[in-house]
Amino acid sequence: MRITPLTELIDRSHKLQEKLREQDIDATILVQNSDLFYFTGSIQRGLYYLPAEGEPLYFVFRDQGRARMESGLFHVVPLDRLGSLPGELVRRGLPLPQRAGMEFDVLPVVELQRYKKLLPATELVDVSSLVRTVRAVKSSYEIEIMKDGALLADRVYEQAKNLLVVGKTDHEVMAELFSFALKEGHQGLIRMRRFNAEMFFGHIFSGADGAVPAHLDAPLGGLGTTPAVGQGAGHKKIAAHEPIIVDFIIAYDGYLVDQTRTLSIGPLPDKLLRAYADMLEIQKLMFELARPGLSWSELYQRCHERACEMGHEQHFMGSSPSQVRFIGHGIGIEVDEYPFIAAGFDDQVLLPGMTFAFEPKVVFPGVGAVGIENTWWVTQEGVKRLTYSHEDLWQLPLPAST
Amino acid sequence: MRITPLTELIDRSHKLQEKLREQDIDATILVQNSDLFYFTGSIQRGLYYLPAEGEPLYFVFRDQGRARMESGLFHVVPLDRLGSLPGELVRRGLPLPQRAGMEFDVLPVVELQRYKKLLPATELVDVSSLVRTVRAVKSSYEIEIMKDGALLADRVYEQAKNLLVVGKTDHEVMAELFSFALKEGHQGLIRMRRFNAEMFFGHIFSGADGAVPAHLDAPLGGLGTTPAVGQGAGHKKIAAHEPIIVDFIIAYDGYLVDQTRTLSIGPLPDKLLRAYADMLEIQKLMFELARPGLSWSELYQRCHERACEMGHEQHFMGSSPSQVRFIGHGIGIEVDEYPFIAAGFDDQVLLPGMTFAFEPKVVFPGVGAVGIENTWWVTQEGVKRLTYSHEDLWQLPLPAST
Repeated sequence: MRITPLTELIDRSHKLQEKLREQDIDATILVQNSDLFYFTGSIQRGLYYLPAEGEPLYFVFRDQGRARMESGLFHVVPLDRLGSLPGELVRRGLPLPQRAGMEFDVLPVVELQRYKKLLPATELVDVSSLVRTVRAVKSSYEIEIMKDGALLADRVYEQAKNLLVVGKTDHEVMAELFSFALKEGHQGLIRMRRFNAEMFFGHIFSGADGAVPAHLDAPLGGLGTTPAVGQGAGHKKIAAHEPIIVDFIIAYDGYLVDQTRTLSIGPLPDKLLRAYADMLEIQKLMFELARPGLSWSELYQRCHERACEMGHEQHFMGSSPSQVRFIGHGIGIEVDEYPFIAAGFDDQVLLPGMTFAFEPKVVFPGVGAVGIENTWWVTQEGVKRLTYSHEDLWQLPLPAST
Repeated sequence: MRITPLTELIDRSHKLQEKLREQDIDATILVQNSDLFYFTGSIQRGLYYLPAEGEPLYFVFRDQGRARMESGLFHVVPLDRLGSLPGELVRRGLPLPQRAGMEFDVLPVVELQRYKKLLPATELVDVSSLVRTVRAVKSSYEIEIMKDGALLADRVYEQAKNLLVVGKTDHEVMAELFSFALKEGHQGLIRMRRFNAEMFFGHIFSGADGAVPAHLDAPLGGLGTTPAVGQGAGHKKIAAHEPIIVDFIIAYDGYLVDQTRTLSIGPLPDKLLRAYADMLEIQKLMFELARPGLSWSELYQRCHERACEMGHEQHFMGSSPSQVRFIGHGIGIEVDEYPFIAAGFDDQVLLPGMTFAFEPKVVFPGVGAVGIENTWWVTQEGVKRLTYSHEDLWQLPLPAST
């Protein structure tokens, strides 16, 4: 169990304060679990109050004792109810803010209404993008945790090789592999920021099930076991000579890494082997291009162009018309952080310290999917790979009886 | 894989339409996964548009083919982007609504802003409570699915007896038991409605770890393995003569049931045995009192009073000051549905078809927790039990070496 050091928390608050001052925002109130964890080291129920100048306060409803253990912040303040907040601020010599930021991208409407009632003279504005921009650039402390996650990702991948057997279902393999990951330290919960986005731990698909699109904004979706979930491993039995996708998100000490490998039992058709080699090429192109200052959308465009030149226009990142318009996604506390290596959503440039998963994949309906995914971090010199399992399309032996 | 019958979907839409008309609301637009699943049978990305009179439409961004397979509704309409919605409505002869409802309790602020821009002449109002009230009353179709979940809950509980061993950690047992549940059909994902509320699958705690409070609005929290999650099974090793809580939520075909049992390895101190017997008494009192027409808060008050008379005031539903002010929670597609058997939040009365988990528990800091939980449904005559595992405080034999 790792406790976020105070130096980290202070540094993070300073970065956000700088952005608040640039936008003439007097203070920000953050309440969502991932943001609380990032700025306080804890997700005990409460709110993080950061004035544009001065020290942050962590007001806690429940559990107060735990918040004091988990958060290194100086000011961990018990709060009986939200209505006491303005009084507590005034009592501490903090003026009520004229303009205050909140996370409009995740905050439910009723919650905003409560804060409006509480602070009637305050203009509440959206700081989601500021918060996400600060969080996108990881410290070396955060990178170290993600490296630990990458170690676990490799053990999980090696274990997958032991579990894949002709006749077993994708769902059974998933249950066994996830159990292994939990025992090795996986935290269980995986967080996504986007509204309605849900993720269990990742995906295991064999053959045609790898080509079933879903509601999720991802190249692969999967049938799942019920329309109530509508994604993920289903009850398809694994067969020989079909591509098997192991797309596993490791969540460890609050941080995620994402890694995908393709395997098969017995040889695959040449078409799939060539497509897999092409995806490695796309990854190589990303590796050559990515550097601080490059825009997220340009990186996307260049890699997308190459995939089209290779003849994958109709099958890259999903099969037409169910394609997604990204190849990579920022990753850290959440699966869907900045940067988006995408066709121009919230476009910015790569900065040293940003971390992202890059996942070139091709999808053939009725056949399956092949592809690769690693988690990377941006340095002054270019990108470095965090996840490191070997990248061969791994071929397991055919069972003796086949 | 179960597909929701059209008769169910039509019946559900009629109930909501009745409530819309009572409140002079012309239409409702629902977008959250649980509500989409309830009203369309699918959670493909899109929106459910229900005029106060006439037939519902399911507009789908992604994946459109899947939505047509999964939803029995007549009108499953592909939509390229949200901006096309008003035109599509008009094209189908539907007037743009003057007053339209949305789910303000879960809808992020930015999403509401998008709809306001899209429908500038429409007054958007909160229909969360109407939707939750409709969803609270289950049909016999829904009850049957929950009965299937209860079968699985019993198998999981029986398996827990095989996995609990002195020296194994709570987290290890959790990993093994969850894997078992997944293989038996558990869907993996568990949904909570409340902002920031997260649930992995439930909780397994031995001894003192059962008494660690957390941010979660629940009587037991647990240390977990990282402050980033801040709840759940931790790395405590199971010992003899301490209470072991197995609180497992089954999610099956979209519906949840919740069951808790207390076990031990070797005998427990008399104080804990007496407390457990008291919790069975509280459950019996609930069983005697609960009937259609009784208010949720009265049921809570009566049971809470009895717990206080028994001397548990400081330890019932958490240890003071970390107690929660409820004993039961509605359950269905989400863990935190109506009714709340609580001290007066959104108070209403019990109605036939409502389903809830009732979980009297006592918590002793440094020692652990004991208690019981079952899922119930309200009938004309009173409540019936859905989960049915035997209710003895189960004592496993001491290992030979102890």
